[in-house]
Amino acid sequence: MEISHIEHVGIAVPSLEEAIPFYEKMLGLKCFAIEEVVDQKVRTAFFKVGQTKIELLEGTSEDSAISKFIANNGGRGGIQHIAFAIEDGVANALAEAEEKGCRLIDKAPRKGAEGLNIAFLHPKSTCGTLIELCEDPNK
Amino acid sequence: MEISHIEHVGIAVPSLEEAIPFYEKMLGLKCFAIEEVVDQKVRTAFFKVGQTKIELLEGTSEDSAISKFIANNGGRGGIQHIAFAIEDGVANALAEAEEKGCRLIDKAPRKGAEGLNIAFLHPKSTCGTLIELCEDPNK
Repeated sequence: MEISHIEHVGIAVPSLEEAIPFYEKMLGLKCFAIEEVVDQKVRTAFFKVGQTKIELLEGTSEDSAISKFIANNGGRGGIQHIAFAIEDGVANALAEAEEKGCRLIDKAPRKGAEGLNIAFLHPKSTCGTLIELCEDPNK
Repeated sequence: MEISHIEHVGIAVPSLEEAIPFYEKMLGLKCFAIEEVVDQKVRTAFFKVGQTKIELLEGTSEDSAISKFIANNGGRGGIQHIAFAIEDGVANALAEAEEKGCRLIDKAPRKGAEGLNIAFLHPKSTCGTLIELCEDPNK
């Protein structure tokens, strides 16, 4: 698995409408895209910070992973996952991780926000952190 | 406040001895430093990922912020904070944030791991995320 950089950091927030002004007015970052990912039951807002993006995530349904994360966190937002950009492909990385004994959430890459191919490793195998692997199919 | 990039992502782990091999053997990253920060009651391990570092944090005492984070997270690790590199200085950024109504954990910069000047914003003002501001005094 060849990781080139952190593609994004996924931050759960109770409300994009409250969070976007914090990131723009307090931190001076600029939201460049808002996107709903229907099958994940989330709305996302993206900010570029150097090489990496911040992806704010708001659940659109109580049974979304983001809404559950916030409920388990006493109703507060927080950092939900970290996503690595994979140079040699997500499918390769998944095969390598599984062979080394890592539990996978996704057995094969699927489509995520921004058209990326993505897959998640299971936190049981990663010392607790939800880790996403990403590749841009247009690169 | 001028943010240039994400300086590091701080990840709480129950044990560095278990977590470092995961990051090295599964993800292919290389631990380049292990450091104890006595006044924070943590041991840290650093990995470079493109422009950003991953800082693994293990509490050295039950009353450290990291040990409390893990206890509140059902004994599991997770992403505890995100740290931004500030171009125009942490002291300036704190003054600006306070003037705009942000609650601060640190009223003035203090020394963190790797000799950086650091300060934390309070999660009550950041939609739940623990945000660190950093500057390298040698740059």
